[in-house]
Amino acid sequence: MEEYNYQNVEAATKSIFKAMGCPPEDARQISNILLRADLRGIKTHGLMRLPEYHRLRKLDKINVKPVIRILHQTPSTALLDADKALGMVAGTRAMTMAIEKARRVGTGWAGVRNSNHYGIAGAYAMMALDENMIGIAMTNANPLVAPTYSLKPLLGTNPIAVAIPAGEQPPFIADFATSPIARGKLDVMHNQGESAPEGVLQDEQGQPTNEANILTRNGSIKTLGGEKETGGHKGFCMSALVDILSAVLPGANFGPTVTPTLGYLRGERKDEEDKGIGHFFGAMRVDAFQTEKEFKQQMDHWIKVMRESEPAIGQERIVIPGDPEREHEEHYYRNQTIPLMDEVVEKVREIGGELGVDVNI
Amino acid sequence: MEEYNYQNVEAATKSIFKAMGCPPEDARQISNILLRADLRGIKTHGLMRLPEYHRLRKLDKINVKPVIRILHQTPSTALLDADKALGMVAGTRAMTMAIEKARRVGTGWAGVRNSNHYGIAGAYAMMALDENMIGIAMTNANPLVAPTYSLKPLLGTNPIAVAIPAGEQPPFIADFATSPIARGKLDVMHNQGESAPEGVLQDEQGQPTNEANILTRNGSIKTLGGEKETGGHKGFCMSALVDILSAVLPGANFGPTVTPTLGYLRGERKDEEDKGIGHFFGAMRVDAFQTEKEFKQQMDHWIKVMRESEPAIGQERIVIPGDPEREHEEHYYRNQTIPLMDEVVEKVREIGGELGVDVNI
Repeated sequence: MEEYNYQNVEAATKSIFKAMGCPPEDARQISNILLRADLRGIKTHGLMRLPEYHRLRKLDKINVKPVIRILHQTPSTALLDADKALGMVAGTRAMTMAIEKARRVGTGWAGVRNSNHYGIAGAYAMMALDENMIGIAMTNANPLVAPTYSLKPLLGTNPIAVAIPAGEQPPFIADFATSPIARGKLDVMHNQGESAPEGVLQDEQGQPTNEANILTRNGSIKTLGGEKETGGHKGFCMSALVDILSAVLPGANFGPTVTPTLGYLRGERKDEEDKGIGHFFGAMRVDAFQTEKEFKQQMDHWIKVMRESEPAIGQERIVIPGDPEREHEEHYYRNQTIPLMDEVVEKVREIGGELGVDVNI
Repeated sequence: MEEYNYQNVEAATKSIFKAMGCPPEDARQISNILLRADLRGIKTHGLMRLPEYHRLRKLDKINVKPVIRILHQTPSTALLDADKALGMVAGTRAMTMAIEKARRVGTGWAGVRNSNHYGIAGAYAMMALDENMIGIAMTNANPLVAPTYSLKPLLGTNPIAVAIPAGEQPPFIADFATSPIARGKLDVMHNQGESAPEGVLQDEQGQPTNEANILTRNGSIKTLGGEKETGGHKGFCMSALVDILSAVLPGANFGPTVTPTLGYLRGERKDEEDKGIGHFFGAMRVDAFQTEKEFKQQMDHWIKVMRESEPAIGQERIVIPGDPEREHEEHYYRNQTIPLMDEVVEKVREIGGELGVDVNI
């Protein structure tokens, strides 16, 4: 991991998306969300994804000049068709609508169909914080997770992010895949010759395995909780709920009908129309319940009580969701740098070259 | 487990709650929700709880003639003070408000403070189904779950229920504690001399244990996912989110500040005001997004795809959330009976005797 000058990386990333055909404002949004992942230490959702987006763009799976349409709305809800936009463009638009609706009627909710990968869910949830709202974002994804008792992967790692404002304390920001382990982490383990932890993977026969590359050989990630006796069926409920809210409710492709963007997944779609992946966003004004002041005092209290509780022996502290990512981001923000792997920068230069962009990072 | 005549059990239960001082309509609501748990096979939340409610009533922790007040509302939200009502009374009222708001503006959300145990979360979520809405219910509870890296239990088993209507298929009904195992199940294991599964419990020192009664000796349930490497921090996020939405947002007692109703919990509250436990409810009209017809077709499709997928070797089928409970309920509904343990019936007779109610079951 090397540190690169943030301004230069941002300029190069924006230029590349503009060269792909994105309008300047979209290129800016996409770059910000992508680089935010690297700043927050979630490198699997950062600039590392650029080659994938570039490939999908060339295959015409991503529309760089989307006309995002509102298909239906009520005072507190909206359904958007993203017109095959990159998820960052669709997500920013939908979350903005959810926030506007919350401003007027207390809460706002937006579903999106016909979209693509949107980077870190946390980026959208955090948009609500400045408005003194609780922000919620979720998305479905490539099928890699086997429901309890299933032989095959039928659901995505389906992340949820919830951002909750506080007063003096930094906000609570949960941003997590509903699967026990992320695909990116398995790739890293495999590349380093490591085994995956017990209880999180199954092979093509449904048998437990530690082989970190089992997903490339018809294996699956188990649901959060693992076997039924340790609560795996609850993890299935979580994965299923994200799939239903993000995809069934907005009318996107769900579960195993998602068109895979991973080479080793075959995909179950036959003649079904491709309605992309889907997202679901929510915003709730905290003062739609208590006053802002009361809520923030209590949220501060909650965070302090948890943070100051006694850690288990051998542990330093209880980690409040969002703490590690914020600390990571603050470090690089102070330096005005961004951490990137050399291979990632190499790929950015390569794609820049292909698109005639002068990459100076 | 014996089968008892449903009408007789219902009549006795209603009479007991009336004898405790509940208005007839409240007694009816409480009885229905309580017995629904037994009908659905969730006996830990059924009539087995009557002695606890009776005890809390005598201690004046439960108010049988509550004046439930609306503290604040917006077009899509409401905050209620339950005035120490039993949770079934407060929950029914709050979920009804959420549904009414959803009818008008697409979605409705209600938070409740100053409440008590409310039985199965699923009962409230299911209220939305007849309205072609998605129903959501959650609640906080006695602190029994240790966050990742925590020595002590700071959060409840904090259940979530989400009910989603379908067309020809029965609805999807997820109703689960966010902890890997329920307290009631641990009690049953202990009474039968069984060990708890690996990875779900820790002792007073934070060390792994299989002792099913460890909660009575300062132990904790771990979060869903267990250790951090198998995703336990995601389970912590889930438990935390339920606590924050159910208790911090409505201004109830959260996490370790909940006044315990279990004898072996000491409770961390010092001079804080007791604002009871809290609940959070939601209702979303499916036609606030797609048309009802489109949504139901896709939900049927989702359920069928999952149900008909290949089960793992040795497994019969992929269990759709809500299937086992519905099959259980249908069986007893056909017989007009309800399954109860003899000890539970004995307790009901005893309490009936104490309150001068003629229990004929």
